[in-house]
Amino acid sequence: MPENVDDNITRSERTRIYEGLKAILLISGGDKKARLYSGSLASFMGVSQQTASKLILDMVKAGVINRIMDGKVQSIEITETGRDLLFEEYSRLSGILGVRDNIIVSGTVQSGMGEGRYYVSRKPYVIQFQEKLGFIPYMGTLNIKIDPTEEVSLRRIRGYSGIKIDGFVTDDRSFGPVKAFMGKISGVKCAVIFPERSVYRDVIEVISEEFLREKLQLQDGTRLQIFVNVSN
Amino acid sequence: MPENVDDNITRSERTRIYEGLKAILLISGGDKKARLYSGSLASFMGVSQQTASKLILDMVKAGVINRIMDGKVQSIEITETGRDLLFEEYSRLSGILGVRDNIIVSGTVQSGMGEGRYYVSRKPYVIQFQEKLGFIPYMGTLNIKIDPTEEVSLRRIRGYSGIKIDGFVTDDRSFGPVKAFMGKISGVKCAVIFPERSVYRDVIEVISEEFLREKLQLQDGTRLQIFVNVSN
Repeated sequence: MPENVDDNITRSERTRIYEGLKAILLISGGDKKARLYSGSLASFMGVSQQTASKLILDMVKAGVINRIMDGKVQSIEITETGRDLLFEEYSRLSGILGVRDNIIVSGTVQSGMGEGRYYVSRKPYVIQFQEKLGFIPYMGTLNIKIDPTEEVSLRRIRGYSGIKIDGFVTDDRSFGPVKAFMGKISGVKCAVIFPERSVYRDVIEVISEEFLREKLQLQDGTRLQIFVNVSN
Repeated sequence: MPENVDDNITRSERTRIYEGLKAILLISGGDKKARLYSGSLASFMGVSQQTASKLILDMVKAGVINRIMDGKVQSIEITETGRDLLFEEYSRLSGILGVRDNIIVSGTVQSGMGEGRYYVSRKPYVIQFQEKLGFIPYMGTLNIKIDPTEEVSLRRIRGYSGIKIDGFVTDDRSFGPVKAFMGKISGVKCAVIFPERSVYRDVIEVISEEFLREKLQLQDGTRLQIFVNVSN
């Protein structure tokens, strides 16, 4: 699992790195891969070339960008960790500015591997679901593959801190922290859950008090919309 | 008219000030007025007390905060210019992350002072409205008083750069630049216009090819929703 950038760097380093990422995106016109010279970054950010080179090194170290050689030209690519950092900043700013959005994402029902059932039925999770989400979930998750066109909306949801479900350790293994967002599918209360430490994937897991597949007569491939409340 | 913070400071200064504003908002829990000691700002931002004191001075100078004495205690209040800066950053980030929102605001029809009619019918504006917005507006504006609960949405719209309508100078006076956003009211195409340099106010001006009051049978006090496209 990729390490969370927060754990490795201080707040002021985070700010520098965030500004660097933003500059790269602006220079590249929103493209996550950019041909970038430290000189152009320097002049864009209004800092010395030395400062810009140091920043690029620090960004590589923090895992937010990769450097790739395109023949003789060096390109820079923003990593998933880097994108997460930008969306976290966006969501944080939304929060402090009082922008309270509900985000709707569309997707199709997919079969899971049965793993979700195992995880969500662990007792320490169940207790917290009841306390923090207000319901004991049906033992199983509904997997929804989010439409590619909705990638940005899903990243925005992931950027919010959500409702924190603590991890725990058993005799033989550890279960990581999870973040949850209350939501609705066809009017039925549910919650979308994400492992706190995970890379972006286009399949989300939904839990509910109800057996959603039966209640809403869903089959693999059924299209649906999930209404997600990101303001807690 | 308040000066735009952009004109007075460099990009790296802007970044410092933005980080300072964000820290103040976070420390105060989103409240724009905060009791703030430079020490708490310093520890929150992970900088020295000297750096924090300097930052507070610079923020006062840039007009983004005011210092007020509450008896013996010093408070800091984020100004309208400061709030604009935060929302501009938010909108900029929305743009580069590809978050394409349409923002809906609600309000009530209000009588204007007839000034809008004078402004929007100036020829250099009209030519640009036709070129950039695709229509020649009816000579007059519809004034809509936005509901207090929608303040954040209106600030978000203002944070976007929109479609730029240049200002111009005549023999006897100058007309400032305007930014416009395409929108719809009850399905009728319109544009919301803001003087580029203006403080926040809860009344917006809408122009349209149609005489909206007649077409939509609006009267003072009629409630309506405006659908604003902020992605240009």
